[in-house]
Amino acid sequence: MLATVIHAARDIRVEQVADPALSTGADAIVRVVAACVCGSDLWPYRGVTETNEPHRIGHEFVGIVEEVGPDVAKVKAGDFVIAPFYVCDSTCVNCRNGVSTSCTQGGWWGSDDRLGGFADGAQGERVRVPLADGTLAVVPGPVGDDEIAGLLTLSDVMGTGHHAAVSAGVSAGDSVAVVGDGAVGLCAIIAAKRLGATTIIAMSRHPQRQALAREFGATHIVEERGDAGVKAVRALTDEVGADRVLECVGTKESMDQALRSTRPGGMVGYVGVPNGGPELPIGAMFGRNVGVNGGVAPVRGYIEALLPDVRSGAIQPGKVFDLVLPLAEAAEAYAAMDERRATKVMLRP
Amino acid sequence: MLATVIHAARDIRVEQVADPALSTGADAIVRVVAACVCGSDLWPYRGVTETNEPHRIGHEFVGIVEEVGPDVAKVKAGDFVIAPFYVCDSTCVNCRNGVSTSCTQGGWWGSDDRLGGFADGAQGERVRVPLADGTLAVVPGPVGDDEIAGLLTLSDVMGTGHHAAVSAGVSAGDSVAVVGDGAVGLCAIIAAKRLGATTIIAMSRHPQRQALAREFGATHIVEERGDAGVKAVRALTDEVGADRVLECVGTKESMDQALRSTRPGGMVGYVGVPNGGPELPIGAMFGRNVGVNGGVAPVRGYIEALLPDVRSGAIQPGKVFDLVLPLAEAAEAYAAMDERRATKVMLRP
Repeated sequence: MLATVIHAARDIRVEQVADPALSTGADAIVRVVAACVCGSDLWPYRGVTETNEPHRIGHEFVGIVEEVGPDVAKVKAGDFVIAPFYVCDSTCVNCRNGVSTSCTQGGWWGSDDRLGGFADGAQGERVRVPLADGTLAVVPGPVGDDEIAGLLTLSDVMGTGHHAAVSAGVSAGDSVAVVGDGAVGLCAIIAAKRLGATTIIAMSRHPQRQALAREFGATHIVEERGDAGVKAVRALTDEVGADRVLECVGTKESMDQALRSTRPGGMVGYVGVPNGGPELPIGAMFGRNVGVNGGVAPVRGYIEALLPDVRSGAIQPGKVFDLVLPLAEAAEAYAAMDERRATKVMLRP
Repeated sequence: MLATVIHAARDIRVEQVADPALSTGADAIVRVVAACVCGSDLWPYRGVTETNEPHRIGHEFVGIVEEVGPDVAKVKAGDFVIAPFYVCDSTCVNCRNGVSTSCTQGGWWGSDDRLGGFADGAQGERVRVPLADGTLAVVPGPVGDDEIAGLLTLSDVMGTGHHAAVSAGVSAGDSVAVVGDGAVGLCAIIAAKRLGATTIIAMSRHPQRQALAREFGATHIVEERGDAGVKAVRALTDEVGADRVLECVGTKESMDQALRSTRPGGMVGYVGVPNGGPELPIGAMFGRNVGVNGGVAPVRGYIEALLPDVRSGAIQPGKVFDLVLPLAEAAEAYAAMDERRATKVMLRP
């Protein structure tokens, strides 16, 4: 089959690889209907993290189950499924606690580990899915082609934006500022509105993303950053800062912006993968009682809750996809994301 | 009148000072019935923070109102009052948000600032209380002498322990570990039990404090620290860590202990004043979804909620006082706390 392989920084190729095969009894083979390129895929692409040898890549996909192992009870051939960006059993203590990203049996796509051999990256034609009953969420059919984009966001960005909002404790009537206007930041706006926030401030300088932010529920746009950004957020929030701030970038600067834009007693919900590990200034947090909560988003547990609103059209996160390319053009997908010509790219095998 | 003055590290004197006088119209003069020495008072005592010139000290007290300014409406002469460890108006946006430590008009005892001139430290015979209606909580009389200790804890340590628990989100059925066995840590145990925690692990090596911890509701004692401490907490909590961990010390080591003792998806509630400003390792927090929330405790807002349980004896935080001395012996009070001969010392003018 064809799959995307990263060979080195800026060297993305679609190549023939071995077809996946069932190996554990609890796994499934899924034919990929759509996959995407994630902001975190750009780290090896840009050389921020090193690529020591060519390896498969991608971790967000939806597809149709082709085959299941004898121990798979819930998922069956023909099911349309959403795969989160990681593998989990959905039964261990951490999964039960809502933190399936810390599943005691789980793991990551594109890795060769205790999950019964290699688990394919998602940017390919087929994927072997370990722990299929725990990992995959079944979408009752029929599934229209126009639903693909929205469903695909549940594999990562919509669930991740939702996790930022949940972690920050967004509730009805809150003022919320969102730092980051990528796909996750835009989905965080959807999530904040869905949870009842009434003032939603999108921090963005990008005209098209500003427009989508407004469409998703942002009530205000702040283009300023740093001190000026803090001042602008305060001007919109009784001069104290936002009740909740959703940090969807992961740099030292974005976290600093988030912490300082939060009111005393407020909370930062963060999902931006800490790039280089910015440390948090606890002294400043202490004096103002600003909390920080979040992390790698346990999106598997959010799929069932968000699915009805996605299918009904009540929320339309699929609009973050502004470019759809065939799998064969994966290299162009990466380039478009890297150069910010696209917010989020969908790949169709 | 007599009041405690710190002249330099380990130089505490009780001296004649000028009587306080009303100055703003919104202030009150309170005769101190009991005050205490706080762990944070030990910082200048130990020379951790510098004492550039002699100054008044102390910030926790209860007393009887002697006189009020013409703009004071709620508090009146003869009232028994609890003063939090700071001054606040209880009406500004931050106070309304439950963060009275960030009061836009507030300030600190022992400082000479915008609060209408010098606000006395609390370890003296009388105190001028700025913003009296906002700052003071009235305890309906009569107040028995055996109630003093419990009421005095509402000026700081009981409210601070409660803030750790509230910030961590302790709720019914939770497992909770408490790092720190000082007065605040012990009160945090009371708070965790009061909020419904069913497993309460006190991290303590001090036999008398262990006994009080158990009396307050601790179900387990862990003496180990570091890796062994983490392992011991995990052994008591499904091998994942505690749902909520209350950090009541403020050092890098104690925060590290707290973060690592928390289960994935759990929360650290912290109230230990960050000593030297340990920074938080966001990478480790991110991977395990461990949040950090808390800060300088807005105890004024907790007094009314905790008061009935203190007066009924349902909770007995007054037991943290294991030494009571006359005001004249303030120097010995500091030495006893410094040398850990006492957990918490009460001073009676």
